[in-house]
Amino acid sequence: MIAGAVEAGGTKFVCGIGNEQGEIIDRVSFPTERPEITLPRVIEYFRDKKVEAIGIGTFGPIDLNPSSPHYGHVTTTPKEGWGHYPFLPTLRKEFDVPFGWDTDVNAAALGEAVWGAAQGLDSCLYYTVGTGIGVGVYMEGRLVHGLVHPEGGHVLTRRHPEDRFEGVCPYHGDCLEGMAAGPALEKRWGVEGTELPEDHPAWEIEAFYLAQSIANAVLTLSPKKIILGGGVMHQSQLFPLIRREVARNLNGYVNAPELSGGLDSFIVPPGLGDNAGLAGSLALGLRAAGR
Amino acid sequence: MIAGAVEAGGTKFVCGIGNEQGEIIDRVSFPTERPEITLPRVIEYFRDKKVEAIGIGTFGPIDLNPSSPHYGHVTTTPKEGWGHYPFLPTLRKEFDVPFGWDTDVNAAALGEAVWGAAQGLDSCLYYTVGTGIGVGVYMEGRLVHGLVHPEGGHVLTRRHPEDRFEGVCPYHGDCLEGMAAGPALEKRWGVEGTELPEDHPAWEIEAFYLAQSIANAVLTLSPKKIILGGGVMHQSQLFPLIRREVARNLNGYVNAPELSGGLDSFIVPPGLGDNAGLAGSLALGLRAAGR
Repeated sequence: MIAGAVEAGGTKFVCGIGNEQGEIIDRVSFPTERPEITLPRVIEYFRDKKVEAIGIGTFGPIDLNPSSPHYGHVTTTPKEGWGHYPFLPTLRKEFDVPFGWDTDVNAAALGEAVWGAAQGLDSCLYYTVGTGIGVGVYMEGRLVHGLVHPEGGHVLTRRHPEDRFEGVCPYHGDCLEGMAAGPALEKRWGVEGTELPEDHPAWEIEAFYLAQSIANAVLTLSPKKIILGGGVMHQSQLFPLIRREVARNLNGYVNAPELSGGLDSFIVPPGLGDNAGLAGSLALGLRAAGR
Repeated sequence: MIAGAVEAGGTKFVCGIGNEQGEIIDRVSFPTERPEITLPRVIEYFRDKKVEAIGIGTFGPIDLNPSSPHYGHVTTTPKEGWGHYPFLPTLRKEFDVPFGWDTDVNAAALGEAVWGAAQGLDSCLYYTVGTGIGVGVYMEGRLVHGLVHPEGGHVLTRRHPEDRFEGVCPYHGDCLEGMAAGPALEKRWGVEGTELPEDHPAWEIEAFYLAQSIANAVLTLSPKKIILGGGVMHQSQLFPLIRREVARNLNGYVNAPELSGGLDSFIVPPGLGDNAGLAGSLALGLRAAGR
């Protein structure tokens, strides 16, 4: 079976097709413009691809409630034209196939559980740390939606004792995203994160915030794997710092072999690398088709 | 159908029988002693009750993995005699019926979702705030276990600006339980919480910590209802303080009608009152029997 995948991001769209082994067979990418420009390009791409299902993992916030009149819309985004535009309904009109529809991070969590770092496990959390911070939640074999959907990038954490930065989140100031996403790194240090050397104190502070939110998520949810993706996590020196801080925060309280030792196989990069988002969308499509 | 329920607490056991409407028909209670004394009393109680299933909601930490050799044990408790005692296996030997087995707080969350404040919803969080703090997690129609089970009472929160108390958690010092459970109240103020007047500053500080952990849980999980039970929550003046602080922390970020206004119907006491634990164990038993 060949399914389609749409990774809908705030700056670019990636469309592709893939199979039940999670292999991406073809892909294209184009900038995110107004939906009246971007969605026709998505439709054009899939027109001759004979896909039997399509999965969409998208930026949000989105409406995930199938009985809502706004199901399949991005809701309150400042992104021009997308707020309450009928994103999913527009594609449904063109293709008579099952559609999967979820947040980009939930899609990535599912992809990692099916083919990636959490393969064979019935739970994982997928963090993306980039221009924003998002957390996909897969628990007991299901993607978590709840009232709206998880927004774990905005949790409050304690302040690093040496950090005086006020934070950049327009809603919460110094929440996790306000303190640890790419724009926070850049504003705090005056240069982009990629320009900071590996041993810069920025990374200790970055790890401090991420680790605290991860430790709290481990206590709240008891996930079987924590997967950290996104541009900032390309700084691979962060992984040992984060693992050390998570262990310090938990302080041996939760008794599980996976949480003892160095957490090396518990807190990991995406098994699907930078494909996690597109493969996750593929997995959403296949799941919608009952595969 | 009549099912049995065991609410196994650190200080007392409650056993009862009930029906599919969640009505408790009979109950007994006795102190928690060593398992060799307490479990025979449980067995004796159910001997002539003709129950078709038994549900157990218990203090922990516990082993919830059915393929583990320690499934059905309390694991690392300091409670004398209970650590790795074959709790569930001992009862299974006596009664050839389906058994439900989960944490006390997960049981209470399930009971509230079936018959209580979250009736008809597929997600809720159940907090108990008493001698400790525990959080039951019910998401997408399933009780969350994951790696071990949630331990949301031990999350880290920011410190109240006027609070100099060091905290009483032996693992984390000033985690949520260390700052806001009954023993923390008593140590901070020198008297039991029940002796503090309704307008004592203790309650603002108590609400501050609980609200922060609730706001973080709302962001992380997006539950459809937050239920607050346990002895400390008998101080009903806490509810408006907590709702106000949760709203302040979220600051309008999550867009849902349930989260606007005063959160009066979002953050609520148990619909089952102090029956939440026993009725929840009953629900576990009924669910184990496929009801």
